[in-house]
Amino acid sequence: MPESQTNSGADLHLVLSGTGLRAGLTDALRDAVRSGRLTPGSRLPASRALAADLGVSRSTVTESYAELVAEGWLTARQGSGTRVARRATAAVQPPRRPTPRPAEALMPGASDFASFPRAPWLAAARRALDSAPHGAFGYGDPLGRPELRTALADYLSRVRGVSSDPGRIVICSGFHHGLSLIAHALKARGGRAVAVEAYGLDLYRALLADAGLEVPLIPVDEHGARVGELRDVAAVLLTPAHQFPTGFALSAERRAAVLDWARTTGGLILEDDYDGEFRYDRKPVGALQGLDPDRVVYFGTASKSIAPALRVAWMVTPGPLLPDVAAAKGRVETVSVLDQLTLAEFITSGAFDRHVRGRRQTYRRRREQLIAALGRAAPEVRVTGMAAGLQAVLELPPGTEEPALRAAARRGLKISSLAEFRHDAMSDRDALVVNFSAVSDSAWDGTLDALAEVLRATHTTSV
Amino acid sequence: MPESQTNSGADLHLVLSGTGLRAGLTDALRDAVRSGRLTPGSRLPASRALAADLGVSRSTVTESYAELVAEGWLTARQGSGTRVARRATAAVQPPRRPTPRPAEALMPGASDFASFPRAPWLAAARRALDSAPHGAFGYGDPLGRPELRTALADYLSRVRGVSSDPGRIVICSGFHHGLSLIAHALKARGGRAVAVEAYGLDLYRALLADAGLEVPLIPVDEHGARVGELRDVAAVLLTPAHQFPTGFALSAERRAAVLDWARTTGGLILEDDYDGEFRYDRKPVGALQGLDPDRVVYFGTASKSIAPALRVAWMVTPGPLLPDVAAAKGRVETVSVLDQLTLAEFITSGAFDRHVRGRRQTYRRRREQLIAALGRAAPEVRVTGMAAGLQAVLELPPGTEEPALRAAARRGLKISSLAEFRHDAMSDRDALVVNFSAVSDSAWDGTLDALAEVLRATHTTSV
Repeated sequence: MPESQTNSGADLHLVLSGTGLRAGLTDALRDAVRSGRLTPGSRLPASRALAADLGVSRSTVTESYAELVAEGWLTARQGSGTRVARRATAAVQPPRRPTPRPAEALMPGASDFASFPRAPWLAAARRALDSAPHGAFGYGDPLGRPELRTALADYLSRVRGVSSDPGRIVICSGFHHGLSLIAHALKARGGRAVAVEAYGLDLYRALLADAGLEVPLIPVDEHGARVGELRDVAAVLLTPAHQFPTGFALSAERRAAVLDWARTTGGLILEDDYDGEFRYDRKPVGALQGLDPDRVVYFGTASKSIAPALRVAWMVTPGPLLPDVAAAKGRVETVSVLDQLTLAEFITSGAFDRHVRGRRQTYRRRREQLIAALGRAAPEVRVTGMAAGLQAVLELPPGTEEPALRAAARRGLKISSLAEFRHDAMSDRDALVVNFSAVSDSAWDGTLDALAEVLRATHTTSV
Repeated sequence: MPESQTNSGADLHLVLSGTGLRAGLTDALRDAVRSGRLTPGSRLPASRALAADLGVSRSTVTESYAELVAEGWLTARQGSGTRVARRATAAVQPPRRPTPRPAEALMPGASDFASFPRAPWLAAARRALDSAPHGAFGYGDPLGRPELRTALADYLSRVRGVSSDPGRIVICSGFHHGLSLIAHALKARGGRAVAVEAYGLDLYRALLADAGLEVPLIPVDEHGARVGELRDVAAVLLTPAHQFPTGFALSAERRAAVLDWARTTGGLILEDDYDGEFRYDRKPVGALQGLDPDRVVYFGTASKSIAPALRVAWMVTPGPLLPDVAAAKGRVETVSVLDQLTLAEFITSGAFDRHVRGRRQTYRRRREQLIAALGRAAPEVRVTGMAAGLQAVLELPPGTEEPALRAAARRGLKISSLAEFRHDAMSDRDALVVNFSAVSDSAWDGTLDALAEVLRATHTTSV
């Protein structure tokens, strides 16, 4: 429960409670207004300042602000920041957790949940339930069901060039779970530090730190992580196929260099292949793991290719690491056996390939539409990164990021700034991360129009 | 990887590796025979001695022995113990992990997996998938889907007298997961020790110890745990409705006493209601939690009522504990959202009640048949514990436990001794724990006959 006493803008002491950071912040702000601690007309801290103060992401703050603006507690006006609404204290008490207003989430991590393949999934579930041996309904192998591990070994070899046998595949409830297993295994072997890319999700860096590991950063450029700068770490966490979120692939030279590093130092490469299925211009380069299965732990997930709701992911570990990973995973399976059986059937029946192919076409088209729309509405915005994955980076003219984020929030668009994913909290450029996979087909055209309009207006206003 | 140098029987240095204790032990023993370190005719350590030496359960050893007997590496003969077979070194190399021979598992933890309600479950899955909002396919609330938490709050109140609102229910992947969340929450609040009943599963005691807690034992008698002996602990883990595995309920006096203890000391009661749905003679007494929701954490699971394969369990926590539990659970949901939605639909549609009612009738009948069969075949065996749950305790005449276990293993019956569940490893009586829910309907009659025959023969031989 972080406490904050910020000095910029309103004098704002907040105690966040509850389980959702954003909901907790929204509640705390609403209470502050309602109780009169924040007086009508007073200015709230800049989102960047409050975020830093509370140790939360800036989008958490901007979303809280936007929600309270929508509820009428706050007002946001160009040039005057966010303020407590004049009528706020007289308002009737809204429910503590109001139904969120419609908003289109374009932050990374969201996905087009409407695309969940309900009918093929259910058909696979029926076949899996029909054919499962009775014993399958028990506690199960803590490392995962053999059916799924076998299906994945074939699939990963075919599609990602992963070298694997089912015995080295471990099923986990998400990349987060898999990474925590590896973190504990590395600690158990005396590992001290795991390097991470300078851009990425706080969540994973925090996980490694919580496991007692140092987490030094390696810089990232348009050739991916600068792996030549690796020093004295037990492992490095990389997104080689498509750096998250900057969107570049690890170059061939650096692929070779990091494998050399691993062989020379005995270090381990943790390959997060979160969106390896989604490359639009050509066949994606194979997994690093295929080049040296003894030095790479490969991570894949169904969260991007199907849906996070499955809570199924997988990793392929070097044989010698397996006992430590198994010890970390414990003696009890934690991943739904039914989902494992269904996913195995979904893969082996070809339904998974069909589903991924369909999503790939959709996402390729959306990315092209995004580039075209921005070219028309805001030609000074540059879309960077490869033709791949579920999000694009929009490089903005200097000084326009903050107004663009504000304008987007007013339009009900939830967008992240690139700086939110920069671990050292230094923003070297104005840039947004737009997850073009995150809205449903029916909402896409309108969302794209709104986004183009936001960026056109921002440019017109600020230039 | 425990190393053992046992002094009873053969000189036996074993290094266990791999992920399954039993498989690892079987492999190590087979290698020892194959390599000649164990010579033909030599006697193996008594299972009790080797189990103590390796720190594994005795059933692990007896099952390993039985498997190697079945493979022909070892021989077991009444009165001469287990020995290396004469022909062992000349044998062809068997596969390292042979297909297990057919065996009827009567140990606690197994269940009648054939009873999984495939058709109703699939129907619920279809309805859940049809009606789920798009947003349900995302990462989800780390504490669990609201649909399931709401369904459980109603169900637990109706069936177990649990006082709950959905906001205090936390979905977890099993009791093991829920207990680990509480262990971490208790540690975070400075808790030092959690008492456990002197009989129970090693797994849970080890989990608490791994979390850095002391785990003192409280004795158990026919009135349940002797809670009057609680001293200086932050919490106590109890199975009040049906002590596992001895089979007695916590008496009304002790229920009152432990609630008094909790109120007086600020201690917490961890109520493991693992089989609360299964009472055969009368309506089960309600959950302790209903009497003081602020001092009791209630745990329930789908593992006994439906199947472990779901990997879904739940706990109801006192409000003040919720933030610490949420922090321990982390920011990412780990339990299949699809299974949560399906289980919610399964419960609210009444399918869960129907399924439980059917299983209850089956298990009640089996328990009665078990008592009747033993009364005929081995009247000196006493079945103790309440008419409840999924297993019964069979009290044997002194000195007959070891021969009974050996005879059962020869017949392909996997049975546990009561002593395996006694944490202080002191065996004060000869007794078996028989899980009468663990075999399929089609195998039940034959299994019961075999068990009766084993006990009849044991008695005839040893008396």
